[in-house]
Amino acid sequence: MMILIKLGGSVITDKSRYKVFNQETTARLCKEIASSGKGVMIVHGAGSFGHMLAKKYSLQLGLQDFSQVPAVAQVQHDVRELSLMVVEELIKVGLPAVSVPPGSCFVMDNGKLIVKDDETIRRLAHIGVMPVMFGDVVADRSKEFGICSGDQAMEVLAKIFKPDKVVFVSDVDGLYTADPKTHPDAELIEDVDGSSLDKVDTRTSTVDVTGSIRGKIEEMIKICGGSAECVLVNGTVPGRLEALLRGEDVICTKVRP
Amino acid sequence: MMILIKLGGSVITDKSRYKVFNQETTARLCKEIASSGKGVMIVHGAGSFGHMLAKKYSLQLGLQDFSQVPAVAQVQHDVRELSLMVVEELIKVGLPAVSVPPGSCFVMDNGKLIVKDDETIRRLAHIGVMPVMFGDVVADRSKEFGICSGDQAMEVLAKIFKPDKVVFVSDVDGLYTADPKTHPDAELIEDVDGSSLDKVDTRTSTVDVTGSIRGKIEEMIKICGGSAECVLVNGTVPGRLEALLRGEDVICTKVRP
Repeated sequence: MMILIKLGGSVITDKSRYKVFNQETTARLCKEIASSGKGVMIVHGAGSFGHMLAKKYSLQLGLQDFSQVPAVAQVQHDVRELSLMVVEELIKVGLPAVSVPPGSCFVMDNGKLIVKDDETIRRLAHIGVMPVMFGDVVADRSKEFGICSGDQAMEVLAKIFKPDKVVFVSDVDGLYTADPKTHPDAELIEDVDGSSLDKVDTRTSTVDVTGSIRGKIEEMIKICGGSAECVLVNGTVPGRLEALLRGEDVICTKVRP
Repeated sequence: MMILIKLGGSVITDKSRYKVFNQETTARLCKEIASSGKGVMIVHGAGSFGHMLAKKYSLQLGLQDFSQVPAVAQVQHDVRELSLMVVEELIKVGLPAVSVPPGSCFVMDNGKLIVKDDETIRRLAHIGVMPVMFGDVVADRSKEFGICSGDQAMEVLAKIFKPDKVVFVSDVDGLYTADPKTHPDAELIEDVDGSSLDKVDTRTSTVDVTGSIRGKIEEMIKICGGSAECVLVNGTVPGRLEALLRGEDVICTKVRP
């Protein structure tokens, strides 16, 4: 039994302030994961360590002019810093882990992450060191560089390790009929399939170069691949992730292809 | 014209104190490299961020028992922290760079680093972001894990990029007939070839799981590969690295195969 978990950028960072790490929340979530006793693999988002500067320099468009190159290096540096802070919290709770930066290990082709060889990731997992991937700037065959989202990293790991459950941890209770931060009458959708996407108002309130909530749901369905159970859960509520991992009934959205 | 530079662990860290980064020295060396105006590629050692804990848990032997696994993750974490600090200094002086951790990207086979595919490294260099490798713990096909030295990373980069010059920056003026820190009568050898190795007393005074000075010289000769000029220079003396890079005559040891 393996559970693939994405710690979203909205929960491990303050998405509205450049490079602000939510250390306490991340430490608590890592503790909840360890306490659950489940076998897990973890990916995290880039949050304000990635999206702000990436957006400012339009890195998602690929090479436009060479003034972007220092920004590529700076964003790569910033998200690696975030990743080390996440890994440090995992190590502290007894989960040996190592940061595996997509931009240092892989390339993309027109925005699609290419993992020609997964031997390193497999061997790390085999010796008991969890490979932790994250959103990153990655060299791209077609446009010189581009953004690899944490969700793309999820897809790669799901293909390699075939998780039984895929959990997306963010700062909302699940998927709503509209953005609950701006629409108080928004309703939580407990179960989603492809068709329920039409009900969703997909405007988002925060900076995100990797796409909207709708894009994320479509990505989630792709990641599930028809076999894994796919869940969206609020990581800002203490205990909820742990309860979910233990198999208890919690407030969340379950996504089915 | 490309120069491959190794910033040794003895110069960027205090090798006798766990995780002490020599920030000022590293910042100065990065400034000297940038001021020289030369095209460079940089590797760094692990120093006290790697060797102490690696030695304590005998990580160079590979898997002996599972109590080593948390230490594998901790050393990987520590050397990644060091690498980010080195990269930060490079970015500060206008050299876009990204940390490329061998243990996240590659595997070894019985202690030998295997780079099946160098597309990521080539593409990063192509867009103008210098891939910075370093000493790391790496998954190993034969013994589960092992130590990859900065010198092994040098060998890989030398093969890919065929540097005109290879420079090893450490805390001594070059190769001596004995360890100059403990033997005041030790003489600097200005030129070394394979035969002069016999003259060298190779006892070392500091912790290093990756081998002795003699091993390093043999490794250097291997890296030169017969074509590149190979130099050992003291990075603790301000200005010396920059003068060497500019092609001036400085106190150093030149190694010829």
